[in-house]
This record gives sequence, C-alpha cells and structure tokens, in this order.
Amino acid sequence: MPPTDRFVAEAHFHVRYAETDAMGIVHHASFIVYMEEARSHYSRVRNADYAKLIEHGYHLVVAEVHARYTVPARYGQELITFCWVEEFKSRGLTFAYEIVDSVSNATHVTGHTRHICVTHDGQVARIPDSWLNILRP
Amino acid sequence: MPPTDRFVAEAHFHVRYAETDAMGIVHHASFIVYMEEARSHYSRVRNADYAKLIEHGYHLVVAEVHARYTVPARYGQELITFCWVEEFKSRGLTFAYEIVDSVSNATHVTGHTRHICVTHDGQVARIPDSWLNILRP
Amino acid sequence: MPPTDRFVAEAHFHVRYAETDAMGIVHHASFIVYMEEARSHYSRVRNADYAKLIEHGYHLVVAEVHARYTVPARYGQELITFCWVEEFKSRGLTFAYEIVDSVSNATHVTGHTRHICVTHDGQVARIPDSWLNILRP
Amino acid sequence: MPPTDRFVAEAHFHVRYAETDAMGIVHHASFIVYMEEARSHYSRVRNADYAKLIEHGYHLVVAEVHARYTVPARYGQELITFCWVEEFKSRGLTFAYEIVDSVSNATHVTGHTRHICVTHDGQVARIPDSWLNILRP
Repeated sequence: MPPTDRFVAEAHFHVRYAETDAMGIVHHASFIVYMEEARSHYSRVRNADYAKLIEHGYHLVVAEVHARYTVPARYGQELITFCWVEEFKSRGLTFAYEIVDSVSNATHVTGHTRHICVTHDGQVARIPDSWLNILRP
Repeated sequence: MPPTDRFVAEAHFHVRYAETDAMGIVHHASFIVYMEEARSHYSRVRNADYAKLIEHGYHLVVAEVHARYTVPARYGQELITFCWVEEFKSRGLTFAYEIVDSVSNATHVTGHTRHICVTHDGQVARIPDSWLNILRP
Repeated sequence: MPPTDRFVAEAHFHVRYAETDAMGIVHHASFIVYMEEARSHYSRVRNADYAKLIEHGYHLVVAEVHARYTVPARYGQELITFCWVEEFKSRGLTFAYEIVDSVSNATHVTGHTRHICVTHDGQVARIPDSWLNILRP
Repeated sequence: MPPTDRFVAEAHFHVRYAETDAMGIVHHASFIVYMEEARSHYSRVRNADYAKLIEHGYHLVVAEVHARYTVPARYGQELITFCWVEEFKSRGLTFAYEIVDSVSNATHVTGHTRHICVTHDGQVARIPDSWLNILRP
C-alpha cells in the first residue's frame, strides 16, 4: 500500500502490445520502464520536470533496481503506478512503487529504485537546492 | 495532415526516458511502438478493444511497416498520435499515422502499417463482421 | 566474481544502439533483458533449450528481480554475462549474474532473479525431473 | 536474396524472450532493432566501428524505415541478418536487409533504412572521406 504521510504520484496508462511477451503477459523488464515513467510523472506533477534537472547538469542515475512480481498483467489492461520517495539523502534517494490494476486494484508489482545524484561528468554531487523541496518526501 | 473524411483517433502521451537513445532523441524503433499503441487507442475509442478481437480468435498481423522521420523528438515531450484507416479490404487493412508535438504541432514522424487478418492457427481470414463498422474508415 | 563450485554460463555480445538512452549509456532496463538472455544461454549450453521446457508445459516465471549498477556501459561495447544457479528448490530457483566488460573485465552490473515453476494454467509445480540435472547448480 | 556484387555483412544471433509478444512471435518492432544491429555489425566487420564515426562528430540519422514481414519468428530461434548498402550518395545512404532462419533459410523479414549524415548540431553534411570506402557498396 502506498504511504499516507507523503506525496504519492499516481499515473494511469494502458499496457502496450509491445510490452507483452510470448507467455501472453507483460514482460518483467517492461515494469522497470513503468517505474521509470512513474518517476517522470512524479516530477511532472510536482512541477519539476526531470528534463529540467538534466538541463541544469544533473542526473539521478540508477544505482539499484528491485522488483517483486505477484500477479501477471496483460495487453490492454489499464494499470496505475503509485510512486513516492521512500528515503532521502543529500546525494541520493530511493523511490518506491506499487503497480496495480485500475479496476480490481490487484497489485501486480512492487519495487524500489535507488538513485545517486551525479553531474554530467559522472561526479557524485549534492542534489541541487531547487530540487530538495520536490524530492524530499 | 490527418484526413477529414474519416474517423481519426488522437492519443496524447509523454516520451519515456527508456525510449530515447544515445543521440539524445527518441529511438526510431520507439515510434513503431507508438504507432501500434495508436492502433490500440483507435480500437478503444471506437468501443472495440483489440484484446476482444484476439479473444474471438483473430489477429491483425503486421505485414508491412513504413515510417518517415522528419524532426527528432526528446524525453518528456508530449506527443500526439493521429491514427486512421487508410485502406480497407475484406482480409486486411492499412493504418496511417502522423505523430506530432502537442505544443508546436511539428510533425515528427509519418507512417503506415499494413495488416492481414489471420486466425489463431495462422490462416488468412475475412475480418469478422462485428469489426467491419469499426475498421471501415 | 562468478562462483567456482558450479556451472557458470558465459555469453559474449555487443551493446545495441537501441539499448542506450539519452544519458549516452545502456539503459538500466536493458540489463534486465541481458540477464534474461543470459538464462537462455545457460540452458542452451547445457543442452536444455528453455523453449523445450515451455513446449512441455512449464514456465519459470520471474518472481523477483534485483540489479545493482556500478559502471555505465556504452554502445558498441562487448559485454560478457556470467550466469549461474545460486539457489535451487523443488519449485523454483534463483539465478545470479555478473555483467562485465570483455576487455577491462570491469563489472557493470550484478544481480539475481528468482523464479517459480508454473504450468501453463499458472499453477505452481515441481520442476520436471528432466530439468533437475540442468538447473541444479 | 542478398546481392552478390557488393559487401554483405552476415550476423548470427538468438531471438531473446523479451523480443517476443503475446502472439508468441517476435514483435515487429524488434526486427527494426535487428536491422540497426545489422548495420552496427556491418561497420564492425569492415573495421569501422560506428561508435568511432560518432566520436568524430557525425551521425547517420534514420530518415526512413521500411520492413516487410513474411514468416513469424519465435523465441530461441537462431536468425541471420544480411545487411548491405543499397544506394550511396555523398550525404546519405540506404541499407537493405534480409533476416532469415539459420536452419531453414526461410526469409522472415526484408527491409531497408535510409540515412542522412548529420553533424552533432544537426546540420546535413557530406559523409567523411574516411568512411567512403567503408560505406560505398
């Protein structure tokens, strides 16, 4: 269940056919992409387009990905991603996710991704002040 | 420009980071997936979920893909796909597409895909009657 | 480092351009696909094509994915996946992975995936006897 | 059939599970990626890594993609891509492709992609002299 003590971004979308595999279900790597888009959506709804952070010379590189798959999802299904900041540090943060069916609310996947703030030349850096209010849970 | 004499499905979405490549732009194969999702959307807005057609034992397999790339698109950009039926035959059809920027209306990609109706065992078949009204332009 | 007390499958391949993203590096979800192909390769080199297991009515569905990203990889680079069985149970198993550069041997990604054996109708099942010798580390 | 009057690059690879879709076959967009990798392979076997061209400030952007799908391919199948230069101009070129089964030699897909040479800032440019001998068919 998404937490109630912090901002949670909620995005709705349909499973694309290209995201399925020969088992007839959504391929497990597709969910990793859904999580990424959930982060993008999180930034957008907080008026802080991630594309802007990049323009300012910073990236939140992915240091770790973890996903737990419970119920398979299928083509055409409308899914909801819930995304929130689980842990926040000066040089990085952890996003957590829950991906559920829009009708039954069944949980398909839960997961988290750990990120480190780096400059364009790859040096670890403090998250810029302008992003603290957005990313701090 | 999308035609004015037939149904045109219009879908809005944001470019995902995973869909870009090292040139900093949307990878050309990602647009082929956008076209496919534009077809799915076309069916949905006409109350004819493509998933249903599949359940009834039919597929509209892809026989041909053509795309022309004019302006590169980038991460986070909101794109619009326009999708319509260009040509209709009893055993197949051609969808056409235009993918534009939601703000500037600049055309990024145009294309079309040719499809053949087959049963689950791969035999070419007439498009089921229940789908004629939906797919006929 | 891959273990020395069990079979380790080693596969060589080049990073495809489509697998990179706008940061100029291999997208993190691409490594999840590399891991999957490393499993496929593991089966092939043990003379046990995973496609055969599927034909016999079984799947090793993905229950969990974990990846740790250390050094970014780039387009055209030749990578090596090392893949081995970390843990084996009657109804499931865990594969572990290390993905390194073929020249420098630098480790790009380490990870593991947990799998459960299911029949085509989704019931959890014992891994078939014919696969025990292959999958037991 | 690949032409006999010019260089043809031949690459062998296995279909990855992630490249299939819910029809149980290789997704049509995956073939567009196979074509791209066939171009990369073409450069490599001619001792002209495409990554080098990029380092020198040039890109061969994709202006057009065309693919014709005849026979579906499946997970685990070993495919061969044949790739050659179909047409060559000072500021662009067209690659052609044939993708066949490694055992039966059945043709799965044929296609071509048209490319324009641009500098990093997006200006159309002449293909650098050092690449003429490689890319001229």
